[in-house]
Amino acid sequence: MAPEAIEAPVAGAMPRIDFQTHPDRYRHWRIEIDGPIAFLTMAVQENGGLVPGYELKLNSYDLGVDIELADAVQRLRFEHPGVKTVVIRSGHDRVFCAGANIRMLSISSHAHKVNFCKFTNETRNAMEDASAFSGQRYIAAVSGTAAGGGYELALAADHIMLVDDKSSAVSCPETPLLAVLPATGGLTRIVDKRKVRRDRADVFATLEEGFRGKRAVEWRLVDEVVRKSAWKDTVRQRALEFAGKSDRPDHAAGVSLGPLARSFDGDAVSYRNVAIAVDRERGIANVTVRGPDTPAPKDADAARAEGDTFWPLTMARELDDAILHLRLNEQEIGLIVIRTEGDPNSVMEFDALLDAHQGDWFIREVRLFLRRVFSRIDVTSRTLIALIESGSCFAGTLAELALAADRSAMLDGTFGPGSGAAPTLTLGVANFSAYAMCNGLTRLAARFLGEPETGVRARAALGRPLNAGESAELGLVTFTYDKTDWADEVRIMLEERASFSPDALTGMEANLRFAGPETMQSKIFGRLTAWQNWIFQRPNAAGDEGALKRYGTGLQPNFDRRRV
Amino acid sequence: MAPEAIEAPVAGAMPRIDFQTHPDRYRHWRIEIDGPIAFLTMAVQENGGLVPGYELKLNSYDLGVDIELADAVQRLRFEHPGVKTVVIRSGHDRVFCAGANIRMLSISSHAHKVNFCKFTNETRNAMEDASAFSGQRYIAAVSGTAAGGGYELALAADHIMLVDDKSSAVSCPETPLLAVLPATGGLTRIVDKRKVRRDRADVFATLEEGFRGKRAVEWRLVDEVVRKSAWKDTVRQRALEFAGKSDRPDHAAGVSLGPLARSFDGDAVSYRNVAIAVDRERGIANVTVRGPDTPAPKDADAARAEGDTFWPLTMARELDDAILHLRLNEQEIGLIVIRTEGDPNSVMEFDALLDAHQGDWFIREVRLFLRRVFSRIDVTSRTLIALIESGSCFAGTLAELALAADRSAMLDGTFGPGSGAAPTLTLGVANFSAYAMCNGLTRLAARFLGEPETGVRARAALGRPLNAGESAELGLVTFTYDKTDWADEVRIMLEERASFSPDALTGMEANLRFAGPETMQSKIFGRLTAWQNWIFQRPNAAGDEGALKRYGTGLQPNFDRRRV
Repeated sequence: MAPEAIEAPVAGAMPRIDFQTHPDRYRHWRIEIDGPIAFLTMAVQENGGLVPGYELKLNSYDLGVDIELADAVQRLRFEHPGVKTVVIRSGHDRVFCAGANIRMLSISSHAHKVNFCKFTNETRNAMEDASAFSGQRYIAAVSGTAAGGGYELALAADHIMLVDDKSSAVSCPETPLLAVLPATGGLTRIVDKRKVRRDRADVFATLEEGFRGKRAVEWRLVDEVVRKSAWKDTVRQRALEFAGKSDRPDHAAGVSLGPLARSFDGDAVSYRNVAIAVDRERGIANVTVRGPDTPAPKDADAARAEGDTFWPLTMARELDDAILHLRLNEQEIGLIVIRTEGDPNSVMEFDALLDAHQGDWFIREVRLFLRRVFSRIDVTSRTLIALIESGSCFAGTLAELALAADRSAMLDGTFGPGSGAAPTLTLGVANFSAYAMCNGLTRLAARFLGEPETGVRARAALGRPLNAGESAELGLVTFTYDKTDWADEVRIMLEERASFSPDALTGMEANLRFAGPETMQSKIFGRLTAWQNWIFQRPNAAGDEGALKRYGTGLQPNFDRRRV
Repeated sequence: MAPEAIEAPVAGAMPRIDFQTHPDRYRHWRIEIDGPIAFLTMAVQENGGLVPGYELKLNSYDLGVDIELADAVQRLRFEHPGVKTVVIRSGHDRVFCAGANIRMLSISSHAHKVNFCKFTNETRNAMEDASAFSGQRYIAAVSGTAAGGGYELALAADHIMLVDDKSSAVSCPETPLLAVLPATGGLTRIVDKRKVRRDRADVFATLEEGFRGKRAVEWRLVDEVVRKSAWKDTVRQRALEFAGKSDRPDHAAGVSLGPLARSFDGDAVSYRNVAIAVDRERGIANVTVRGPDTPAPKDADAARAEGDTFWPLTMARELDDAILHLRLNEQEIGLIVIRTEGDPNSVMEFDALLDAHQGDWFIREVRLFLRRVFSRIDVTSRTLIALIESGSCFAGTLAELALAADRSAMLDGTFGPGSGAAPTLTLGVANFSAYAMCNGLTRLAARFLGEPETGVRARAALGRPLNAGESAELGLVTFTYDKTDWADEVRIMLEERASFSPDALTGMEANLRFAGPETMQSKIFGRLTAWQNWIFQRPNAAGDEGALKRYGTGLQPNFDRRRV
């Protein structure tokens, strides 16, 4: 393998990757609002890469470009409730988007490549989520070439328009050129989302130059081709047609997403409601989520008035940032131990508000965002262990963290007088409905696939604080220990976990977390991602004589011809 | 990487792996029939490995052991129609089965490991197929330890019984001991088939010693524990209970599966109805399947009287053997070009017989076997291109080969006078119902996911020979070329395909072939297998300091701690 330039920062050697940004600081994207339409224009700065070593030519992207896109997609939902259609277009001539930057891929570590692909898929899923649940439809207005990941960006839209100028085209040239899978989620979106016939998908995915014009429509690769002279008008018209079907409010004021209150101090990261303490020696990140320290607002108006300080929103933003930070910047920390701190009743009060005002656009966005954050946790390749201790508030929305964990342990009773009350776990209506995993099931439904009767009994306990014995009996926690065993049992569990092979755990967790049905999303994160990870590791792609390394050198790759 | 001992035979350096065997030649298994019960006893010979370099201790297995098991499972269906329950048990004391042999895995090439796992999964699927469709239920009678792949063997049964002797247990020790996923299909079977709660599955899959007794039942890892004194009687009683629910005939004579008529000659393999011609220079295996050269028997009795010379059965056995031969013994041949030869009407006559007599046990077995053979083709990691030429018989059951192909090309018209009639393609009722892929859809349903209306029109053409234009219009073939273009277009298509990275094609095909829903089987071959392949390639497992290489050496593995 060649030198690996893009690594997790080790002892300050590399800059920390920051997932927080703001349109004022974007280098690659512009947001322009025009009534119910937002134009999201991609104009990648060649010299604006996240790290040195490559030029972002032809609107190709790296993680930094996608961090801005993710930020824009998120702000369009919260800050622009009146935006009903988002048009993604290119700000460069002759190219829509050339996909992931090849040179960046070729010098990246395996872990960075995999994490980069995962994040870009999550961003595209967020676009699809806005369309499915939030009344904000996406149009990809493709002028110039949309290649590989560039076509995948278009695939994430509801409607793909292609200008008919004899040169603009959509293509997936990765298999012939780079020996990797096209656009990590692209293959699945082609056959599962757009339902392109499999033999046609096979032809398309091996054709460097791709398709344009009528054939692209006939093969369902795009939804329409539009002649150049009518391009701008037709895009606008289509955007207005989509907008007409949206249930988003016409004249609501948005909620600004201000900077997170976040500070780094050695191995600790502190937010308002979330704290990370990395125990480097043991390979553990201790993450604590704090419950609300203000009363729940009385209604949706009051919640909106709190804006980005509304506890569920702040907490979700901070937890999201914390998970991404751990993924990209703390790759050697394989184990996340999650705790909560606060008053379970306060959490349940906020949950009651969220449940009662689902019809409000802002409350809807907050609930959907929480769902996406929990989903991001599910597909994070770290062991998640929830510790349910005195002073915790695993209730309702925060109980979801215990249900997302690979396993959980709950203190049975207390450590004695003055050490805090015995912990409880409280299920809320949200746990049964609000937070579906990427496979379409709630975590409770997935948990009780084999014993639906336990699910029914758990439902009967809704709203009731459950002690350790009751939680175990209802199958909600993995282990309970009393004060004499707690410290040793927890220590042994964490030490043992940290001793296992990181790769075996990643594969094991990815398979155990998603029993039951599959969706396009779960297929992308399960099936397709796993194949791409395998290919990213193979000498035919990543070796010194592999296609990724040799692309652009004038040398042909040298393939081991054995099929595996 | 350490030296790789188990390789595809290159220039005669390694013995060819033969998938044909017979109970008379078994070294590791015994079949004993007792009325409606078959006892399938595993007593692996330590020195009976497929290649030198490892000892098959503790009833551990290699591909050779599994080839015998697959043969036994197949013969029990055809040769023993009266067997209604199959009991799998160990012939060794204190161990049921220790799973895949570790030393074998550690010295195997990546390709061999992957192909070995795929075949063992197919064998276990064949057991589940017998139970689901053929009235032949499986009981795993576990005495001693069932570890890893040994437990997976039990998981393939309908009912797992564990003797309660204070030492017999089920376990998945791979993650802690070997840094690979437990029992390649095992994780999926644990959470998707047995629906074990995910956190319990997580605990079980990281615990070397596994579980026994009541806890194993409570966690649904086994179905019952039986005290030692009642063991034999209870196993028999349970077997008889299952047999009582079977629809298999009581007094039918079986159909013996004789040796295949098969000869090897240089780069060619010839069977009665199938021929392989390997074009080593171009990396292509030309496979030709011949239609029947005898008339279809008049009814099921007559078909049974033909025994293993009944054309659909012979053809299926030969095609199955051919695919396995190409997988294991011709790893550098990445492209299978499939042709048929014969009279389409004859194929349709056999199809009519198969359709009319589905209720006959033998006809049912033949149809189910054909389904499994086509399924084996689907999960074979080689490009499959169907060429539909003059003299071909892509009709009904054989049309399935064109539908299984990644792409197909059909000659439009003829090459001129005397060159044979223009080829046709004929759909039969079997294409719409008999041959579901592992995801539960027929190949036609998967093909027309995005255009069900074309599927309806195709159904209207049932039984009618379709020329190239009609076949293309109905979406049944990818390309049609006339005589002037055929040779060049086909040559370019094959050359281009053969030039691509084998790994990228494997990943691409695995994703494009299975759009739509997922089943336990498709999750095993898609999600889980891909993760295992990735792990098999990672230094933490397969590197010189990895767990697979260091197991049993007394040295601890050295892990790269980065999570990917």
